[in-house]
Amino acid sequence: MTERRAAEAPVGVFDSGVGGLTVLAALTRALPAENFVYLGDTARLPYGTRSADSIRRYSLQAAARLHDSGVKCLVVACNTASAVALDALAHEFAPAPVLGVLEPGAVAACRATRTGRIAVIATESTVRGGAYETAIRYERPTAVVTARACALLVALAEEGWIDGPVVEGVLHRYLDGLFDAAGDAKRPDTLLLGCTHFPVFAPLIARMLGACVTIVDSAATTADALRRALDAAKLTRAARDTGTIRLLATDGAERFARIGATFLGRRLEASDIEIVDLATDPPILRS
Amino acid sequence: MTERRAAEAPVGVFDSGVGGLTVLAALTRALPAENFVYLGDTARLPYGTRSADSIRRYSLQAAARLHDSGVKCLVVACNTASAVALDALAHEFAPAPVLGVLEPGAVAACRATRTGRIAVIATESTVRGGAYETAIRYERPTAVVTARACALLVALAEEGWIDGPVVEGVLHRYLDGLFDAAGDAKRPDTLLLGCTHFPVFAPLIARMLGACVTIVDSAATTADALRRALDAAKLTRAARDTGTIRLLATDGAERFARIGATFLGRRLEASDIEIVDLATDPPILRS
Repeated sequence: MTERRAAEAPVGVFDSGVGGLTVLAALTRALPAENFVYLGDTARLPYGTRSADSIRRYSLQAAARLHDSGVKCLVVACNTASAVALDALAHEFAPAPVLGVLEPGAVAACRATRTGRIAVIATESTVRGGAYETAIRYERPTAVVTARACALLVALAEEGWIDGPVVEGVLHRYLDGLFDAAGDAKRPDTLLLGCTHFPVFAPLIARMLGACVTIVDSAATTADALRRALDAAKLTRAARDTGTIRLLATDGAERFARIGATFLGRRLEASDIEIVDLATDPPILRS
Repeated sequence: MTERRAAEAPVGVFDSGVGGLTVLAALTRALPAENFVYLGDTARLPYGTRSADSIRRYSLQAAARLHDSGVKCLVVACNTASAVALDALAHEFAPAPVLGVLEPGAVAACRATRTGRIAVIATESTVRGGAYETAIRYERPTAVVTARACALLVALAEEGWIDGPVVEGVLHRYLDGLFDAAGDAKRPDTLLLGCTHFPVFAPLIARMLGACVTIVDSAATTADALRRALDAAKLTRAARDTGTIRLLATDGAERFARIGATFLGRRLEASDIEIVDLATDPPILRS
C-alpha cells in the first residue's frame, strides 16, 4: 500500500458499546478530515463486570473485525478493554498504532492536579485491576490515587438519566467517600472520569464538587495522542475533505441509535448502524 | 432410561445471570428432594436490552448445555428469555417439559387482582414485546395492563443497593407514572414483578405503595407449575434425600458468588461456581 493510500484508510475505534461515542465525538472534532469506523460490541456489553480473559478474547475479536475493514490504526475507546487488553491488541495489530484511553486519561489527570491527590471513578474491572493507579504513578510517582467502582452510572447513562435528584443521590453515594470523607487536608483536587459513559454526568458532578475539584476525562488527550501517532506514522489524511463516520454494532441497531445519540451528540437513526457478528470471526488477526 | 433413573435426573434452571437464583430459591423450598443444575449466562447478560434474535440464539445454546448435563426438564427463570424464546426452547427440548416464568407470573397476578387493573415492571425487551399483556389477557381477557421498563433496577440489585433514599427515588421515578398518575379510579391494585431481579425490592415497594396494592412475582407459582409438570410426566424424585444444587456460569465465578448470594439467600464461594463456555457448544439440541 502506498503512503497516500494508507493515509486514506479509516481510523478504527472500538468500544464495548455506545459509551465510546464520547471519545469518537472528541476525535472527529480534533481530526475532522479523518474517516472513522466505530465498532460497539453491544451484544456483549458491559465489559466492566466481565473477567479479564473474556475481555481480552472479545477485544481481539473486535479488533480483527476492524482490521478486516482496512483501518490504519486502532483506538480502544473502552477503559475496561484499555486496562486489560491493550498489550494483547498492540501485539496483534503491530505495526499499526494502537492507542488506549487509559494513558491519555492519566496524563490529563496529572496535568490538572496541583496537590497530586487524584480520585478515579471507573467500572468494577478497571478499578479491580488498579490500572489507573499504575498509569498515574508512572506519570507522577508521588501521586496519591483513590479509586471507586461506580457500576450504576453506566446504567443511569444508558437510561438517559443524567441529571436530577436521583442521579445526584447516586453520585453522592459514590463520591462522598472519595471527597468529603477524606477530610480537607487529604481531599483530592482532581476527579478522573475513567469510563467513557461518565462525561455525560460532568456538569452535575462539577456543581456537586465545586470549583476546587477539576474534572478530567480522556477524550481530549486521546485525540492529541491520536494526532501525534498518525503524524509519526505518516498516516495523517490530507485535510481536503470532511471525514466520514461508519458505525458498526454487534446487536440492537435501534437501541444503539437511541442511546448513542446522547453520547455522540448528534441524531442517529437505526438505519445508520450496521449490525455485524463477531462470533464467527477469527479471534486472532491475520497480517 | 427407566422411569426411576429419569426421575433421579436434575431439573435444569436457566437464566441470563444471577437474578434467576430468586426462582431457584423458591423451587428448592417447594421441591426440596429435587436436584437442580442452574446455568447463568453471565458472559452475555443482560438479556433485557438485547434483540429477540440474539436472546433466542443464546437461550438455545444455554439449553443445549443443560441438556448435555442430563436434566429431565427445563425451567427458564429469565423473564426476557421466557417472553422471546420459550416456543423455540419447547420445540428443541421436547418431549421434556419446558416451563417459563411468564405464564406463572400472569396467573399469580390474575389471582391477586380484584379490580382487574394490573401494573407490570420488567426489562426493556420484555415490555417491548408485550408478552405479559398477552399472557395476562389470556388468563383474564378484561384485565387492564400497564407496563413499564425499569432497566436501572437490574443494575441496582446487582450493586446490592436494595433499600435507602436513592433506591426509593429510582422506584418513585418508575412507579409514580403507573400508580399515582393513573388517578384513584384507575389505579392498579396489583403489581407484577416481571424480572427475577426485582423481588429483592419487594419490601421497599410494599412500604411505598401501601396495603392497597398486592405485589406478586412468578417464583412461587413457577414452583407450583414445576411440581405439576413433574407429576404429570412421572418425573418427580422420591423424597428420601435432600436434593443438591449445581451452579454453572459462563463468566466471573467471584462476582457470581458475591452478587448471587443476595438472590439465593445463602452464602456462596467462588469455588461453588463452575465456569462453562457456551460459544463452542452446538446451538441446536441433539436428541
